[in-house]
Amino acid sequence: MTKAAERRQQLRDALISAAERTIETHGLSGLKARALAFQVGCAVGAIYNVVTDLDDLIIAVNSRTLAALERDLAAADRVADAVEAAAPVERLVRLGTAYLTFATAHRERWRALFEHRLPVGKRLPERYVEDQRRLFRYVEEPLSELQPHLSDERRALVARSMFSAVHGVVMLGLEEKLQALPSEILREQVAFIASAMGRGLVAHASDSVPRSRSHDLRKGPLGDS
Amino acid sequence: MTKAAERRQQLRDALISAAERTIETHGLSGLKARALAFQVGCAVGAIYNVVTDLDDLIIAVNSRTLAALERDLAAADRVADAVEAAAPVERLVRLGTAYLTFATAHRERWRALFEHRLPVGKRLPERYVEDQRRLFRYVEEPLSELQPHLSDERRALVARSMFSAVHGVVMLGLEEKLQALPSEILREQVAFIASAMGRGLVAHASDSVPRSRSHDLRKGPLGDS
Repeated sequence: MTKAAERRQQLRDALISAAERTIETHGLSGLKARALAFQVGCAVGAIYNVVTDLDDLIIAVNSRTLAALERDLAAADRVADAVEAAAPVERLVRLGTAYLTFATAHRERWRALFEHRLPVGKRLPERYVEDQRRLFRYVEEPLSELQPHLSDERRALVARSMFSAVHGVVMLGLEEKLQALPSEILREQVAFIASAMGRGLVAHASDSVPRSRSHDLRKGPLGDS
Repeated sequence: MTKAAERRQQLRDALISAAERTIETHGLSGLKARALAFQVGCAVGAIYNVVTDLDDLIIAVNSRTLAALERDLAAADRVADAVEAAAPVERLVRLGTAYLTFATAHRERWRALFEHRLPVGKRLPERYVEDQRRLFRYVEEPLSELQPHLSDERRALVARSMFSAVHGVVMLGLEEKLQALPSEILREQVAFIASAMGRGLVAHASDSVPRSRSHDLRKGPLGDS
């Protein structure tokens, strides 16, 4: 790397770290180019030598957040593995509560993952999409134990839906949109929903005549397992 | 009602309707006092004779949205009742997909239900909280068939969590936060998650030794069924 490229990389890293701290403290709406330049000690214009725009910077911060979340999910999954001999429903419960713990501890950075909207016409970089995809693998693993016959495509889809369901409980719980819940109760509800979904999948696996095609996991527009 | 009181009521209703149209078209962030005054043909200051502030107006719009949602859920529930002899899992599925249909059709008004944040120190009026509570009763009914021994308090809590889970799938699906899904696939996923949760609750009801206290529905800080 040339000296100039090195300096650019250093400035970029400094900006990402400054943006990360700003988001953690003030949320996404607190992010301003002028304040960032002041924090890292560069001119406002210099920012745009190393990132295209603030959206790029936010995506870089969100990538770091996804990596931190992945570390926590991996740790929760290892515990489940050791303690429960990897019972898939228990693994889902542990992943769900680890997700709640992460969202509680890094509230604003977690929010930024979902609040950030790209301008029309701009797409997420493939690397970021891959960062997201890796997270869902943690759900896909226990899911494939519960439902061994799913196609890869179908398993990926269902894992995202299961993640979304747990996310809904975490999100409405933490934002206190429906009611203020003590954290212990919220934790128990997240575990409960993750567990009910997991147990419902076991039940379905052994249920040879699905009640209605409309919610039959094994058939459908994407399914061909 | 005096003439003056009548006029005040008419202005209030006109403002709520104008705010509703604005939110439906431009979202919550599009709501401005000056534009509202222009739409209903009053002075900007006159608005504050009939509502305390724009938050009051948004709450009134959200109340109407909740009432419209309730009509749709009630209709879906009546269909489930007639067709499926009220099988509780099927009722949950129909409620979930009716919720998706509503959110899709009234995207911005539905968003406003969750995006609106009251200023610190201000609380939702009791009437609005009661409007919300009524919606959850639709989930509580099939839930009480699946889990007949829940206390009222516990049933209300679990119904909200089940709602939150379906909301998560609808929200991340419609906002395309994780991936863009064709509407038919999203519908199927909502049905699938609602169904898995419902079936998981049946399984749990017959499961006499819960695997872990942490997600045992029948015991816990709020539970005493």
